[in-house]
Amino acid sequence: MQAGKPVLYSYFRSSCSWRVRIALALKGIDYETVPINLIKDGGQQFSEEFQTLNPMKQVPALKIDGLTIGQSLAIIEYLEETRPTPRLLPQDPKKRASVRMISDLITSGIQPLQNLSVLKQVGQENQLPWAQKAISSGFNALEQILQSTAGKYCVGDEVSMADLCLAPQVANAERFKVDLTPYPTINNINKRLLALEAFQVSHPCRQPDTPAEMRN
Amino acid sequence: MQAGKPVLYSYFRSSCSWRVRIALALKGIDYETVPINLIKDGGQQFSEEFQTLNPMKQVPALKIDGLTIGQSLAIIEYLEETRPTPRLLPQDPKKRASVRMISDLITSGIQPLQNLSVLKQVGQENQLPWAQKAISSGFNALEQILQSTAGKYCVGDEVSMADLCLAPQVANAERFKVDLTPYPTINNINKRLLALEAFQVSHPCRQPDTPAEMRN
Repeated sequence: MQAGKPVLYSYFRSSCSWRVRIALALKGIDYETVPINLIKDGGQQFSEEFQTLNPMKQVPALKIDGLTIGQSLAIIEYLEETRPTPRLLPQDPKKRASVRMISDLITSGIQPLQNLSVLKQVGQENQLPWAQKAISSGFNALEQILQSTAGKYCVGDEVSMADLCLAPQVANAERFKVDLTPYPTINNINKRLLALEAFQVSHPCRQPDTPAEMRN
Repeated sequence: MQAGKPVLYSYFRSSCSWRVRIALALKGIDYETVPINLIKDGGQQFSEEFQTLNPMKQVPALKIDGLTIGQSLAIIEYLEETRPTPRLLPQDPKKRASVRMISDLITSGIQPLQNLSVLKQVGQENQLPWAQKAISSGFNALEQILQSTAGKYCVGDEVSMADLCLAPQVANAERFKVDLTPYPTINNINKRLLALEAFQVSHPCRQPDTPAEMRN
């Protein structure tokens, strides 16, 4: 049941969507984007049509091979298993463990605490300090871990799933004005990643739904 | 560098620790428990010794094969890759995608929003409604997803990583007095899981650090 091009339900500024866009770009998978605007009309992710597709009412979701998958890491692991080149997980199980630990640290330990729906709940005036605390306490741990795992990238010298989580999280940190000075390892890896084509074409500032004033 | 028995840093009531304890039990891996009391002494996870081990200051962490891994799913995936029997991920990539999607939905979409450190931040009087909202909104999505993936368990008729996430999350739901009536599929799967030996021996009420009054 191969049903043509994969379709990615995405929002330009969603860090979770960006993770998947990088994976698709690195693996050279051609796909269509259906933009889901998380702000407009009270949030298009709440539409009945989208909820049928992803009951979590979150982006990203990927329609591929007759299947719809939600959750960015589940999508990336599926792409890795079905389109293994280039690899986003190292061959050595211990290095794979490091990649997954770093990925999970970001996707479970940082991002959920500073996403749109949580920030709505904490109230306008608390949003910035709340997000900053979540990100800096995660980055404190991450900086320490990377000191023993990193080479050019998060784990050794090959781009991995961990890097697909790192760059979008640093972009969020910048949006929330987190001081990155205490995190030189994170900062340097991020710079190297942003120089790669797959990170550039998938960047929030270059998506079909990026507003004109945010493009570059 | 096989260095004797694996060591699990665990807290009896931590749902993330319980996920890993179930994996260890199912795979018949003998291990030692080092209890980390998340409440006592202001939280033993904040000790310098533990932070060196897991900079995220969270349980679980598993020392195994000369490696220390944090993040429950990274641990479970490592166990699956190095001790594949019995399998906790199906062979079919599409079913694996469902298992990972459900696991990530719980571990990124529900648990982080109702964990101890977040609840401390929202303040005593808001804790219960905050946790209930996080769990019920996640369970609404999960109930809908399970209707197309579940057999006896979360995905088909074999216990998988998704089930290792489900039972501990239902236990949290009960602690936070979430009404489970709207979630018959979740409820039924959970009952089947709790009847299995691996879920019983790993249960929060039977750990070395379970206080006497909570044992049974």
